[in-house]
Amino acid sequence: MPAYATNMRLKFPIVALILEAVTIVLYALFVEYDTGDAHGHGGGHHAEGNTTHPENPMTLYPMFQDVHVMIFIGFGFLMTFLKRYGFTSVGINLLLAAFGLQWGLLLQNVWHMQNGKIKVSINSMINADFSTATVLISFGAVLGKTSPVQLLIMTLLEITIFCINEHLVVEVIGASDVGASMTIHAFGAYFGLAVARVLYRPGLRNGHDNNGSVYHSDLFAMIGTVFLWMFWPSFNSAIAEPGSAQITAVINTYFSLAACALAAYATSSLVEKKGKLDMVHIQNATLAGGVAVGTCADMNIQPFGAMLIGIVAGIISTLGFKFLTPVLASKLGIQDTCGVHNLHGMPGILGGLAGIVAAALQRKEGASAAHQAGGLASSLGMALVGGLITGLIMKIPFWGQPPDQNCFDDSIYWEVPEEEEENEEHSAHAEYSKNKTEA
Amino acid sequence: MPAYATNMRLKFPIVALILEAVTIVLYALFVEYDTGDAHGHGGGHHAEGNTTHPENPMTLYPMFQDVHVMIFIGFGFLMTFLKRYGFTSVGINLLLAAFGLQWGLLLQNVWHMQNGKIKVSINSMINADFSTATVLISFGAVLGKTSPVQLLIMTLLEITIFCINEHLVVEVIGASDVGASMTIHAFGAYFGLAVARVLYRPGLRNGHDNNGSVYHSDLFAMIGTVFLWMFWPSFNSAIAEPGSAQITAVINTYFSLAACALAAYATSSLVEKKGKLDMVHIQNATLAGGVAVGTCADMNIQPFGAMLIGIVAGIISTLGFKFLTPVLASKLGIQDTCGVHNLHGMPGILGGLAGIVAAALQRKEGASAAHQAGGLASSLGMALVGGLITGLIMKIPFWGQPPDQNCFDDSIYWEVPEEEEENEEHSAHAEYSKNKTEA
Amino acid sequence: MPAYATNMRLKFPIVALILEAVTIVLYALFVEYDTGDAHGHGGGHHAEGNTTHPENPMTLYPMFQDVHVMIFIGFGFLMTFLKRYGFTSVGINLLLAAFGLQWGLLLQNVWHMQNGKIKVSINSMINADFSTATVLISFGAVLGKTSPVQLLIMTLLEITIFCINEHLVVEVIGASDVGASMTIHAFGAYFGLAVARVLYRPGLRNGHDNNGSVYHSDLFAMIGTVFLWMFWPSFNSAIAEPGSAQITAVINTYFSLAACALAAYATSSLVEKKGKLDMVHIQNATLAGGVAVGTCADMNIQPFGAMLIGIVAGIISTLGFKFLTPVLASKLGIQDTCGVHNLHGMPGILGGLAGIVAAALQRKEGASAAHQAGGLASSLGMALVGGLITGLIMKIPFWGQPPDQNCFDDSIYWEVPEEEEENEEHSAHAEYSKNKTEA
Repeated sequence: MPAYATNMRLKFPIVALILEAVTIVLYALFVEYDTGDAHGHGGGHHAEGNTTHPENPMTLYPMFQDVHVMIFIGFGFLMTFLKRYGFTSVGINLLLAAFGLQWGLLLQNVWHMQNGKIKVSINSMINADFSTATVLISFGAVLGKTSPVQLLIMTLLEITIFCINEHLVVEVIGASDVGASMTIHAFGAYFGLAVARVLYRPGLRNGHDNNGSVYHSDLFAMIGTVFLWMFWPSFNSAIAEPGSAQITAVINTYFSLAACALAAYATSSLVEKKGKLDMVHIQNATLAGGVAVGTCADMNIQPFGAMLIGIVAGIISTLGFKFLTPVLASKLGIQDTCGVHNLHGMPGILGGLAGIVAAALQRKEGASAAHQAGGLASSLGMALVGGLITGLIMKIPFWGQPPDQNCFDDSIYWEVPEEEEENEEHSAHAEYSKNKTEA
Repeated sequence: MPAYATNMRLKFPIVALILEAVTIVLYALFVEYDTGDAHGHGGGHHAEGNTTHPENPMTLYPMFQDVHVMIFIGFGFLMTFLKRYGFTSVGINLLLAAFGLQWGLLLQNVWHMQNGKIKVSINSMINADFSTATVLISFGAVLGKTSPVQLLIMTLLEITIFCINEHLVVEVIGASDVGASMTIHAFGAYFGLAVARVLYRPGLRNGHDNNGSVYHSDLFAMIGTVFLWMFWPSFNSAIAEPGSAQITAVINTYFSLAACALAAYATSSLVEKKGKLDMVHIQNATLAGGVAVGTCADMNIQPFGAMLIGIVAGIISTLGFKFLTPVLASKLGIQDTCGVHNLHGMPGILGGLAGIVAAALQRKEGASAAHQAGGLASSLGMALVGGLITGLIMKIPFWGQPPDQNCFDDSIYWEVPEEEEENEEHSAHAEYSKNKTEA
Repeated sequence: MPAYATNMRLKFPIVALILEAVTIVLYALFVEYDTGDAHGHGGGHHAEGNTTHPENPMTLYPMFQDVHVMIFIGFGFLMTFLKRYGFTSVGINLLLAAFGLQWGLLLQNVWHMQNGKIKVSINSMINADFSTATVLISFGAVLGKTSPVQLLIMTLLEITIFCINEHLVVEVIGASDVGASMTIHAFGAYFGLAVARVLYRPGLRNGHDNNGSVYHSDLFAMIGTVFLWMFWPSFNSAIAEPGSAQITAVINTYFSLAACALAAYATSSLVEKKGKLDMVHIQNATLAGGVAVGTCADMNIQPFGAMLIGIVAGIISTLGFKFLTPVLASKLGIQDTCGVHNLHGMPGILGGLAGIVAAALQRKEGASAAHQAGGLASSLGMALVGGLITGLIMKIPFWGQPPDQNCFDDSIYWEVPEEEEENEEHSAHAEYSKNKTEA
């Protein structure tokens, strides 16, 4: 790989340490504890965010930990489905989220400073975790085709743009988006797809040997899927108004996901000629109900309404994987590794639309259809423009991007244990390996 | 496999979608939020269930999530020990539980409707999760030998019968069963064993190549074991009377499991001629203490009493795996894939017996030995009869059951990644594979 | 292996059952529920321990479960990185912790008996879990080179000595150590290193084939890493004074870990000549920030202070793995399998030093630099002396220790599935295997 400077030895540590150093300086200047004595409001995210504190500053802590598990185990392991890319999936997921939460907490609260200080509470930690979700969604679109340096840059830029859009949607436009179908899921997906478009690799048009799973990598991915599925009610309700709105968000998400699972399984079997289930669908489309019910999770849509949203989400998500993803790659040059368009993109838009309908039907006090539509439009617009610009910056041939043949392969950025490599090689290319061992 | 119509393409989606459609219609008619304003009582399960709500409707939410993890990660991954059946174990576990919780929530609350409506609260969600546990236990008995369609039918029928028995035991007979040793564990086990008896496969008498583990599949199973072990105190206490009964249930379960672990390890080593530990015992028998202490978890049996129950459970469970399971298969025609008789059956009965003794010793106000004995008898009787009938329905040769040679193999109902299959084949049948690659 | 009596059939069950039997007798005599009616104080650990109960006895339960996950999933899976030692890592981890928590709960509360009784509450269960952490840290140092019997003995002795030191540090010396950098992490590490020194095996000087990872074992280990990383805020805050001290401990730990992750990644890349990331560093050094911020987690060091501590910890931990661990093995005869010196030893001392500085700067009321220094000295001294004595007892050639060639291999104490072994052999020694299958 002579033309590619993929050696990270200086670039990566320098970028990582500069980002962290700048962050620490900003924290030293602006960030302090909010131990619950004052009654300010936490980080943005949406209208519900600016409630006064619950009396016990730890009330939301169990929900914070659920969200934390979704970010670090859920997103991280969901992407381990690739046979030779598990180290990056779970490892770089940790890196990006660890930086992203520090950066997100800063930027989300720029608009809410008190006496020139940002106050850290469990509420703002939840919102900071949320901000990283956008990046992890976009990460899924470009998984296998980017370097850690590129991804750190994407994290910096995407979270910055996310915080602007979130402020716009929630505070300026006044849309309601408690589970963030629009501001996180649709935003993260279309941002990532725009980046993927800019980074289009013609050399991967005909696929890549390592762009697939093996049996146990699919099981690792199910760890991510199941934790996401279980804790999604916490994601959609964590920053809801305490009391009936919060429990409503829990219940709606629980039922949306349950119904979505059945729809995803049924559709997966239906679209395959032998009626077999496809792990890609199960790992992803079962979660689409959580995404799609996000915007109206705290609205009075009744359990059966949530279930209907979940079913539609499960169906379109599965169909997307089967029929749309290949077309996006071949016709539009959008190579979406994890199919984030199907899990976050379309279900996110569906969530936004459901929110418009629910607002029109007056399912939540104070939410109007027009404001909801504005929130969706802003999220999509900012995502596409932001993603294109970010993609162009990431495309500068200096960030150590991998050559095509080393895509989807941990060993370009990681020390990988030797035997196993031999083993994998052995099984994947048995002929070649046999010759080698005979030589 | 000419005689078997294992193609699921129509049967499976149709059954799944019909079940979901019927469920949604019933939800539209009968189910609404319980946001904590009214002071009704949640879903059945047992006498403790009908307490008034705690003031904050989210109080039980962390415990609900623990139970949720046990159902979806715990049961799901525990069954991934089979070398080629991990997709089904964790994937169909998700499917059955996702449908089961919707169905269970409906039926458990038929007896508790208010103004013709079923109210959903965290309490009823916990009970709904519980109802699915019965099916997942029975699933363990028939694992590898049934189609997804058969299992959906079993879910529908078993949860229906479970809800009737639970109502009988708790409301009519008036037995106490806070951790559900009788109504969930013994019931689920003997129901599953009855189904397994009806579905007896002589062709599997001499074992099956795929009915065993590989190194990493045993590690995946330990994810399930450890999460079940850790969160069992939540299972046994989630619906206990808040306050001292609840904390008593936590403490008793914690100590029962700790003592059980030592007993299981010691017994495992003792029954093997080289004194080695057997993963099957560790994965399962370490949990028997949680099952056995269930009925009297909220009773004043003191920590050492809980530990004694745990030790007995750990010992009989391990001995059951070693000596009883082979006999059940060869003499009684009960092929119990996961050994649920050892983890849930015998320890469940032990739990019921311990409850009788504890009630006789007046360890809980209002519990009588006779009522406890009635609860145990009802659970066993309903399980056996219900399981036999369910098994007969499942036996109808239309549900896509796998032929003997395809048992314990995901690839009959799932797309399985090719390389890995080759790999597995390659290693397991190296000679054959070598010839093939040379050809 | 003629000279080694590694058959555990009698030794192991007898030792395990005697320990459990003695424990139960002591529980029958001395232990009873604390259901929150009385207002005593829970188990020791540190000055914060002796607060009166919160009004609801279940308040700390979600934090208890987080700590529980760290102990059983976190520590257990972190050690599964070895290619053939996953059964022991997660399985014996469960055994030792299950016994350890029973023993620890007894000894930690000997000094706090009320009317001759030890009261069990969530608080004392958290402290009991903590006590097992010391053993699991030491386990990491001797992983692969000890028998289950030796490890049970180590558990008994180490927890006993830990409880004495904890009482000394917290109650007698009066040092503050909320996250237990000194009393758990430094203590557990240096205790384990002392044991490892006594058990030095010259035969492993040149490494061992099985003392390494394979691709999927590294992924299993990441399950442990990520759960530890996520829940560390609970570890450091669980027994903090409720209210502002507790939330401060959460926030400090959250930021210390986030900053530590970036430092660990940057340093890992920097010290490798091709700039690649090393899984060993990522699995461990990312956690050093949680250890190092432990002592002053509840002090007013501000978020940026916590981040600085995290960064230093991440850097020294990574450098330790790269440069110090090989030297410890070759020059000092300390073979530290998991590198606990780098994850718990040095960061633990760093935490102790940070506590001294923070106390000197009056960051916590009532904490003095001299008391902090005394606490650190006591922990290190007790660990080294206790570890040496324990190591000598463990060295008695009767406990079934493995011969050098069987180190790092589950199959000496576990039934291991056959195919996989063949598979592993096949891939690792393809030449040999090929010949064998041709024969």
